[in-house]
Amino acid sequence: MANHTLEGNRLEAIPRQPVSDRALIGAVEGTLADFLACQIASLDAVDPALGGFARTARDLVMAGGKRIRPTFAYWGWRGVAGSGEPVEGLLPALGTLELMHTFALVHDDLMDRSATRRGRPTAHRIFAAQRGDQFGDAAAILVGDLCLIWADQLLARTALPAPVLMEVRARYDRMRIEAVAGQFLDVLGETDPSAWSVERALLVARHKTASYTVQWPLGFGLALAAGTHTDLDEAYQVYGLAVGEAFQLRDDLLGVYGDPAITGKPDCDDLRTGKPTTLLMLAREMATPAQLDELTTADVTRQAEIIAATGAPARVEEMIRDRVDAGVTAIGDAPIRTDARAALIELATATTYRPA
Amino acid sequence: MANHTLEGNRLEAIPRQPVSDRALIGAVEGTLADFLACQIASLDAVDPALGGFARTARDLVMAGGKRIRPTFAYWGWRGVAGSGEPVEGLLPALGTLELMHTFALVHDDLMDRSATRRGRPTAHRIFAAQRGDQFGDAAAILVGDLCLIWADQLLARTALPAPVLMEVRARYDRMRIEAVAGQFLDVLGETDPSAWSVERALLVARHKTASYTVQWPLGFGLALAAGTHTDLDEAYQVYGLAVGEAFQLRDDLLGVYGDPAITGKPDCDDLRTGKPTTLLMLAREMATPAQLDELTTADVTRQAEIIAATGAPARVEEMIRDRVDAGVTAIGDAPIRTDARAALIELATATTYRPA
Repeated sequence: MANHTLEGNRLEAIPRQPVSDRALIGAVEGTLADFLACQIASLDAVDPALGGFARTARDLVMAGGKRIRPTFAYWGWRGVAGSGEPVEGLLPALGTLELMHTFALVHDDLMDRSATRRGRPTAHRIFAAQRGDQFGDAAAILVGDLCLIWADQLLARTALPAPVLMEVRARYDRMRIEAVAGQFLDVLGETDPSAWSVERALLVARHKTASYTVQWPLGFGLALAAGTHTDLDEAYQVYGLAVGEAFQLRDDLLGVYGDPAITGKPDCDDLRTGKPTTLLMLAREMATPAQLDELTTADVTRQAEIIAATGAPARVEEMIRDRVDAGVTAIGDAPIRTDARAALIELATATTYRPA
Repeated sequence: MANHTLEGNRLEAIPRQPVSDRALIGAVEGTLADFLACQIASLDAVDPALGGFARTARDLVMAGGKRIRPTFAYWGWRGVAGSGEPVEGLLPALGTLELMHTFALVHDDLMDRSATRRGRPTAHRIFAAQRGDQFGDAAAILVGDLCLIWADQLLARTALPAPVLMEVRARYDRMRIEAVAGQFLDVLGETDPSAWSVERALLVARHKTASYTVQWPLGFGLALAAGTHTDLDEAYQVYGLAVGEAFQLRDDLLGVYGDPAITGKPDCDDLRTGKPTTLLMLAREMATPAQLDELTTADVTRQAEIIAATGAPARVEEMIRDRVDAGVTAIGDAPIRTDARAALIELATATTYRPA
């Protein structure tokens, strides 16, 4: 694809700030690595084939990614927790969100039949290479299931009184339900993209991404601090939905105009699978009859050019800006500790103006 | 299939006792129905398509089945809880095991590409009929995921102090890990049945079925009673593994010689999919060279006749008897309340000499 012709859309206003605190991410990854080493050892003891299965799961968890959810959960907690309060005992809860995220990615990639993720083969492709496609699919379902259960086991290791942990779990459960519901709407939309709309695409963005990536991680983090913080909880919800939607809108743009070398996903993946994103739905609304007709081409590079010509990418950039502004305003007015306010304001931009 | 020629194997010594207390199962199902009605209403409010998705999940949960896991959990608890102690507050925990079981069945049926379960279409077939095969597969993965998360939400409603519930969860987590591990070994075995063995088939039976169907539900039930009951816990483990293996061995026989009208599964399903069961592995060991050669036929009716001729079904019946005896002995000697001892001794037979 002639990415350079679309560079204006791709790189506009990406400040390329660090998305999060490296030390925090390192600590979460250390907790995950220790936990997973124990799990692998116990499955290895039952049967070496199970050890191999668990190692593949571990590699998928540890393969990187932006670790956005633990980062939001950390700042959600830090919003009320004094800067002297140690985070160590809460690291298992932060790691839980990454294990759950691996579950979601592995199952989503299987449903979407995606071949690569973060520049590497997806779970079902790894297993298919070992013993064929039917085994690949089955093992990917099971790796996802395993990660979801491991997430619960890790959450139980959080150093919090049992009643506080119950409240944390209640939020975690609602987050998981919304993620599954959003994914269901997503696959439903793909079965009949012509019947989809901007409104439904935004509904998916809200449920599949916003609530699960920003809103609930923040609320989950706040629950780690125990106590009642109604006003901050509400501000987190406004910020979370706004920034989370902006995050998904950026994903829509990256799914068409992102550089595969940076995103780690195949070129124009969303166009290839016909995903009815907000970007595509807007392009259809804004297209001239001739453009609408030409959008049906199988040539995804050409599709990307037509979408750009409709003005939809610029409109999506505007929607991102509006949402980031709304999120920043909500957190600016909230009863929150100064360092957390500054971090969340920075994250609003860093997570929505990003190259991958 | 000429079932009548094999009737001796199929019906030998099946007393057709009721597997469990109907009142208990009715109470568990009532708890499930109430919980699921709430979940459906909240998803319906987001989008009617989500309501439909949740209703399909509910129908799969409520479609029946033997409800063996809640039954074992109930008696595991009753083994130490006085007969005056009300079970009502624990019904959510018992229902949790059924939601988790629906998760396992939906994902297993997808992996095995089974078309029917309990005489009805499986989840992926229901969804495929609505919007095609790729949607069917994706929606089945998500229905399974949803049931697993619902299971956690329902467990949280159990009327127990938070620290007791944490111990219950710890056992529940280990049960889930073993079920996933057992299923992984099962699909692994199907990729290369010729390299499988009686020993590995029994390893799968232990992990996939015994621990998940009998051993852990009993231990889970005991944890509901709180306190420390080391001797009974050990007896439950011996009983659980023995009776659970016998349960799987009966499943192996039913998978070949069961009446589809009663089992609700397709005729000779295990032979059609080439599942390397203990029964089949034993038949291979016991076969004459001529029988071994003829076992490669694609005619599953003929395969079933050859397996019977090797004497493997009679050997499996013997293994079932040995295991039921071992389970009954363990529970006979255990420090357990009289009514629970009698019920578990009855269940050892009822769950392993069953028609479906």
